[in-house]
Amino acid sequence: MITLHHLEHSRSQRVLWLLEELGVDYKIRHYERNRKTSLAPAELREIHPLGKSPVITDGDRVLAESATIIEYLARTYGGSEWAPQTDDPAYWDFSYWMHYAESSLMPLLLLKLVFTKVRTTSPLFVRPVAAGIAGQVDRTFTDPQIRTHFAFVDGHLAEHEWFAGESITAADIQMSFPLEAAVARGTAGEEFPHVVEYVRRFQARAAYQRALEAGGTYDYGPA
Amino acid sequence: MITLHHLEHSRSQRVLWLLEELGVDYKIRHYERNRKTSLAPAELREIHPLGKSPVITDGDRVLAESATIIEYLARTYGGSEWAPQTDDPAYWDFSYWMHYAESSLMPLLLLKLVFTKVRTTSPLFVRPVAAGIAGQVDRTFTDPQIRTHFAFVDGHLAEHEWFAGESITAADIQMSFPLEAAVARGTAGEEFPHVVEYVRRFQARAAYQRALEAGGTYDYGPA
Repeated sequence: MITLHHLEHSRSQRVLWLLEELGVDYKIRHYERNRKTSLAPAELREIHPLGKSPVITDGDRVLAESATIIEYLARTYGGSEWAPQTDDPAYWDFSYWMHYAESSLMPLLLLKLVFTKVRTTSPLFVRPVAAGIAGQVDRTFTDPQIRTHFAFVDGHLAEHEWFAGESITAADIQMSFPLEAAVARGTAGEEFPHVVEYVRRFQARAAYQRALEAGGTYDYGPA
Repeated sequence: MITLHHLEHSRSQRVLWLLEELGVDYKIRHYERNRKTSLAPAELREIHPLGKSPVITDGDRVLAESATIIEYLARTYGGSEWAPQTDDPAYWDFSYWMHYAESSLMPLLLLKLVFTKVRTTSPLFVRPVAAGIAGQVDRTFTDPQIRTHFAFVDGHLAEHEWFAGESITAADIQMSFPLEAAVARGTAGEEFPHVVEYVRRFQARAAYQRALEAGGTYDYGPA
């Protein structure tokens, strides 16, 4: 039996979505964030030493890292349409998006989020300086990079319904989190219409909706 | 013929190392960072729209993302010892480290680097406030996370010579960059002795040394 260790408002929502798409039996163990720090609770360290979510167990196997969990579930419980074999030429595009989501796109969104917090949570008397510093980093690095990356993704989605192939694959599940987080936070909006349309399209899927119900409140879900 | 589009002092050094390990024919095209911003030059956008390095071309194929390039080279030009097949149970550990390097470990090192720059490049009159803000982010988030992650990696290397299996694999190539960057920058030191020893061990390999010579100056190489 698969158990998903599910942290609220987190990357594990997309694993839940995949489980619903694949129609496999699973259990959810729910974890809440620390109300003050927003971090995962210490009890997650009992499952995996890094104490992060998502983590799944499947029998004796413990799997961490979203992309590895998603590829494991797709290859083990899905048909070949969910993840191409490594000797299929389509595999390299699939591999690209599986890595791109968290290795290239997400770090930019993390930087954006951290400097937004620097602006809003600094003590009142240093807030103008904090805003100046955050503005400088955003202006010279983060914002231009985010524009380049979302234009690139938007361009791909202008020509393709899904990221890797003619139908939905594990790469779409993996890409979903940074895209829906960026749209929900207002980091990406109507200037990237194909991104917004893609997010609305996958959020309307029946399996996605069932996952939302199973997972509980989710900050990055449909508005 | 494979062409590596190689940016100085960058992630593409590890691709060069793998090319030397595999003993394949390749060409290097060298790119220099902008002296003021440290960013990759605009001409890299002619190869791939994101304008980042590494990128390789192999015939008509253009591949980006370190992990995808490394897995492609390992599967195409290496023996099966470089990358397990997806039906090999060892594949899931391999997949874990291939993703972990840039999805979990590197974003923390990026945050550390950005806030180090905030401290050192802010105008003199706001520098105490900048140091206070950077110190707060380091103390409450980045440093504890870095300690947790390096303790985890150090624990793995205390018991394993290589990341995924009994011999070197593509996962070692992928993990090499964050580890050697962290050691070179002083973010990880003697408190993680197995990390330091691992970095020294792979940097001593003949293929690594040949790659250093082929790539030109590299800030994160052997001291």
